[in-house]
Amino acid sequence: MHTLLILSRFARDYHVLIESAHLPDLEIVSTHDPAEAAARAAPFDLAFGEPALLRQVMPSLSGVRWIQSTWAGVEPLLDPALRRDYVLTNARGVFGPQMSEYVFAYLLAHERKIFEKQASQAAGRWDQTPPTRLRGKQIGLLGVGTIGADLARTAKHFGMRVKGYTRASESSADVDEYFHGPLAGCAAAFGADLDYLVSVMPDTSATRHLVDERLLRALPARAIFVNPGRGGVVDESALASALQEGRLAGAILDVFETEPLPADHVFWRMPNVRITAHTAALSAPPDIAPIFIDNYRRLLRGEPLLYRVDFERGY
Amino acid sequence: MHTLLILSRFARDYHVLIESAHLPDLEIVSTHDPAEAAARAAPFDLAFGEPALLRQVMPSLSGVRWIQSTWAGVEPLLDPALRRDYVLTNARGVFGPQMSEYVFAYLLAHERKIFEKQASQAAGRWDQTPPTRLRGKQIGLLGVGTIGADLARTAKHFGMRVKGYTRASESSADVDEYFHGPLAGCAAAFGADLDYLVSVMPDTSATRHLVDERLLRALPARAIFVNPGRGGVVDESALASALQEGRLAGAILDVFETEPLPADHVFWRMPNVRITAHTAALSAPPDIAPIFIDNYRRLLRGEPLLYRVDFERGY
Repeated sequence: MHTLLILSRFARDYHVLIESAHLPDLEIVSTHDPAEAAARAAPFDLAFGEPALLRQVMPSLSGVRWIQSTWAGVEPLLDPALRRDYVLTNARGVFGPQMSEYVFAYLLAHERKIFEKQASQAAGRWDQTPPTRLRGKQIGLLGVGTIGADLARTAKHFGMRVKGYTRASESSADVDEYFHGPLAGCAAAFGADLDYLVSVMPDTSATRHLVDERLLRALPARAIFVNPGRGGVVDESALASALQEGRLAGAILDVFETEPLPADHVFWRMPNVRITAHTAALSAPPDIAPIFIDNYRRLLRGEPLLYRVDFERGY
Repeated sequence: MHTLLILSRFARDYHVLIESAHLPDLEIVSTHDPAEAAARAAPFDLAFGEPALLRQVMPSLSGVRWIQSTWAGVEPLLDPALRRDYVLTNARGVFGPQMSEYVFAYLLAHERKIFEKQASQAAGRWDQTPPTRLRGKQIGLLGVGTIGADLARTAKHFGMRVKGYTRASESSADVDEYFHGPLAGCAAAFGADLDYLVSVMPDTSATRHLVDERLLRALPARAIFVNPGRGGVVDESALASALQEGRLAGAILDVFETEPLPADHVFWRMPNVRITAHTAALSAPPDIAPIFIDNYRRLLRGEPLLYRVDFERGY
């Protein structure tokens, strides 16, 4: 018999979804409240939920053998002060389509000048300014895992050329040109002639401030930077300077070093920055519950779990 | 020897592009001015340009055997008062990708709430309102020629279900369900449960006011109507009523019964209407010149020309 703690903002939804799978040998306790979870002190061997909530009950989870995160990013559980003697799996493979919708909503909005056309409409102006096109433009992806591969596929659908920067993998055939190794060595070649730079890097010690002064200077002044990944990957003051000095045409930012973005942050009032509030890709229970269910069946069969996180690498 | 009149806003660009193809037996005269074209009175046997301009010189083009339109829509040349004893070909196959960028820019803007999020940013508000998704939504295409097929392919890329209404053709495999015959007979089934209705119909006597009260009433109240096709296809007063009465969530309109849209038209000030100024897909010389060049070579070889317009059918 396994005992599962579901600790999530959507605890009730997850409870219903997982129960409806009729998994054998599974007892479920669910709550959205870390204090209640800690008080129950049940001998949970499995846990499922948001890393930020689970982190708060880690001292009570002394018997846990496997934690399934509902998020892709598991930073709260990577604190070296916390236990690492269990299997941690994250959510993958479900965010790509949402990320594509986010990124291409803003790329197409830029090409089609939809904010400018809206202003023309408000002024009653028949505005025949020709739009531009994604077709023939070049996009650079920082990170080509499952999300980056989905972005690459969408970019190819729209006739773009795709550059990809990864540590070593070259798994997406939709990337026209790969770059590896320290970015210091290839920033100029990777950044050259990009119309869009998109970061979908995880937040690890190796990716911290990867988007720095050097990389930003490698981009043409017409480029737009898009960050639906993690805020820690960007040196925000270098980005603000590039935008203010006209070395970069714009930025579309969903994640920040501090969230919510502080009220006095310069990004709020920059005309060439578009801010969204960490909503590019959401963990929807109908997408995420099947990952737990699949992995639980693997556990019962003694198979390796999918999407295991390497605590050292950080993803 | 053939003598070609190029009559276009982009006459110089087209002249350079066509000359650079070194076509044999071809003399070219180019101008953007219909009066000048008429005055030259050369014995043109071929003409290439915008239908609205060419229409003005038709009386001088008594020797013309073939006219290649730079546009998809050739309405100005379909006036029954004009000659029809020549081959008329239009531009096809090049507008699909542009139309996809236009339509999906606005569909994604709607799902991602990008105008609302922009307003939140202006107010300094960290707005975590969850976006919605194209994935799983349903789109209905009025017309599935080359443009409709490209929209269908993009819709499938984003995981949508596609319904298509055509006279008879079922050439796109990206359409999940086809509808034919008088729309009066199938409007209810075609319109049922659509999230988006997009018209890419040509403007002919058979398509006039195809988007009428009946079809609009078949749509759910959450639906958005998109018209990057032709204005005459829509009964604008029926559309305005549906929008005002909340029977339709919104409209994205690039074309109108009268263009430019008159200053006093109700659409300008409707909060759920987005207006663009007939710029969804533009005839760019680098895209269009190759169509003339290819067809000229077919003419020399005695082969049938591509994209021949049926004067009766109107496209």
